[in-house]
Amino acid sequence: METKTFNPPKRILLGPGPSNVHPRVLEAMARPTIGHLDPAFVELMEEIKSLLRYTFETENEITFPVSGPGSVGMETCLVNLVEPGMKVAVCVNGVFGGRIKEIVERCGAQPIVVEADWGSAIDKQKFEDILKSNIDVKLTAFVHAETSTGAQSNIKELTEISHKYNCLAIADTVTSLGGIPVKVDEWNLDAVYSGSQKCLSCPPGLSPVTFNERTLHAIKNRKTRVQSWFMDINLIISYWGSSSRRSYHHTAPINALYGLHEALLLLKEEGLVNSWKRHKLNSEKLISGLKDLGLNTFVKEEDRLPELITVKIPDGVDDLKVRNFLLEKHNIEIGAGLGSLSGKIWRIGLMGYSSNEENISRCLAGLREALEKFKA
Amino acid sequence: METKTFNPPKRILLGPGPSNVHPRVLEAMARPTIGHLDPAFVELMEEIKSLLRYTFETENEITFPVSGPGSVGMETCLVNLVEPGMKVAVCVNGVFGGRIKEIVERCGAQPIVVEADWGSAIDKQKFEDILKSNIDVKLTAFVHAETSTGAQSNIKELTEISHKYNCLAIADTVTSLGGIPVKVDEWNLDAVYSGSQKCLSCPPGLSPVTFNERTLHAIKNRKTRVQSWFMDINLIISYWGSSSRRSYHHTAPINALYGLHEALLLLKEEGLVNSWKRHKLNSEKLISGLKDLGLNTFVKEEDRLPELITVKIPDGVDDLKVRNFLLEKHNIEIGAGLGSLSGKIWRIGLMGYSSNEENISRCLAGLREALEKFKA
Repeated sequence: METKTFNPPKRILLGPGPSNVHPRVLEAMARPTIGHLDPAFVELMEEIKSLLRYTFETENEITFPVSGPGSVGMETCLVNLVEPGMKVAVCVNGVFGGRIKEIVERCGAQPIVVEADWGSAIDKQKFEDILKSNIDVKLTAFVHAETSTGAQSNIKELTEISHKYNCLAIADTVTSLGGIPVKVDEWNLDAVYSGSQKCLSCPPGLSPVTFNERTLHAIKNRKTRVQSWFMDINLIISYWGSSSRRSYHHTAPINALYGLHEALLLLKEEGLVNSWKRHKLNSEKLISGLKDLGLNTFVKEEDRLPELITVKIPDGVDDLKVRNFLLEKHNIEIGAGLGSLSGKIWRIGLMGYSSNEENISRCLAGLREALEKFKA
Repeated sequence: METKTFNPPKRILLGPGPSNVHPRVLEAMARPTIGHLDPAFVELMEEIKSLLRYTFETENEITFPVSGPGSVGMETCLVNLVEPGMKVAVCVNGVFGGRIKEIVERCGAQPIVVEADWGSAIDKQKFEDILKSNIDVKLTAFVHAETSTGAQSNIKELTEISHKYNCLAIADTVTSLGGIPVKVDEWNLDAVYSGSQKCLSCPPGLSPVTFNERTLHAIKNRKTRVQSWFMDINLIISYWGSSSRRSYHHTAPINALYGLHEALLLLKEEGLVNSWKRHKLNSEKLISGLKDLGLNTFVKEEDRLPELITVKIPDGVDDLKVRNFLLEKHNIEIGAGLGSLSGKIWRIGLMGYSSNEENISRCLAGLREALEKFKA
């Protein structure tokens, strides 16, 4: 078989990410590559940092995109703050909390798990009880928007409780940033990571992070060396820190950063508050349409994420057949359930550029057709 | 200051990487994003693996691009093969050998350093002597093309010696792949990593790797868990392995992979052998022109890389002024010396799409002008 230039199909991306990428972002990525130490690129880096501070609502000096997908942002936060032998309170109510737990173990530390049902928020009382009865826990970690379930937890309260028990807190905002409020300074969040391919409408591959002074202090005062060279914040800062003394660490993904810059600019042009409103409004429209089709949401209203709606698959309906039909006939991607939710839910994302009325209409029309076709 | 869309200057990239990116690659990256589990994307992944096998000259099943820059490829190879307490023979003749050593230490292992002067190849006798006198060394690591000095080492011989002493060998081919022969199967290389932004003419951000059966066997038989979750080959294989049972690990950088696919296609269209010839021929032209300007190369002929030529900065010539002049007046980027070579050498890359006659003429003309202007 001869290999040819790849021409991707034009999909409507309504899964758990990536979301559709704005044409201006795609255009930006196709601009000529320049060097990672070029003065013009150093200016771009400063603008990206500044735009990320706007997006995270923070004044944190150390705010930049890690050169890897969201999982690298997660591991970066953890390897810098976790030391062998530590106890870390990890909230697990889905796949990504589970991933945090596993990374904590790989750092030679002991995760103390605060569990909640998949599809529910983390219970703050349960969280506080665990911190109260484990006074040697000095670090906590939790997920704002669980991409595997569509549930959100209150990271403002979880951070307050963490601080009450002298813990630093790591917050996963991969699927929340840009879609719902993430107020890093107002909520006193310590170490935060996100991803480019959800509500920021960028291709996957970058993980914005921000660290406050407490976090940097803790990293500087580690007893052991960070186990990863690539993710060691002490080293990365030499490249992403002050523009006046920038030195080589690794080669940044230049064109991906052109894209992120443009995506953040688009978000600033729309305004954070308007973006949140749009996500909320479109979410309500979708849910109302789903109800008309007889479909019920998996997460109860107060825990439900607007940008990622999980839907119970009705009895007798073939999960895979419906998803394949939507993709093949309508070019619509929706997400499957993960782990124990496989075959039981669909994950419908209305994130970033994907969150618009036309996509909702198409998705509902496609689902209506599929349900009629594949109903038992 | 109002932030606007970023329009990069059009540079001629003749530094140590990134090199100029072919317009077809830039165009590919601007195509619409699709999902990382989309059947069309799964096909693209298979094609990328197949094109990488062509490029690495290997039949290795596990051949794919790591979702991060070359340094992540390096760390991926090391964290999967190094276990705490191990002794690892690490060849150091520049910055990247030094980086390997540091990662080995961060894995809790002990590097046994085989040193060579910066700008020289690793001496095979010295390497063998160290393996002979350290029978508990079971892993070696070396750099094919030292990007910090422009010297190449003979990785075929270093691998043979490694095998003679029952060691697995890790080879860094970041700056060699596509520019000079890297014959993975013929040379029996075990674990190999490279980078997208050198002779492959792609933007930075991806690190092709290939592992043979011995390497996979060693990884499967580790006594301890791989310290990184993101880089654990056992997990990554579930996504990049067989196309029939692909499952989610992390979200791959979709558009960057469109670019890599197109870049590898371009290389296959030209043919590996033709690409090596072009790099060699253009290198000779540049060096001859540099001699006419009274400039001498830093590396002696037998160790010299064709795709990255290091030049001694003449006494009295201001390094920074020359490089700034080339960039600002001629839009030409050449590289500075690193570490102890800072201010002493320039690194002129003729890699991938950057390796052509027009760039050589422009570079020589620019240098002639700069030397006249800034000579003491």
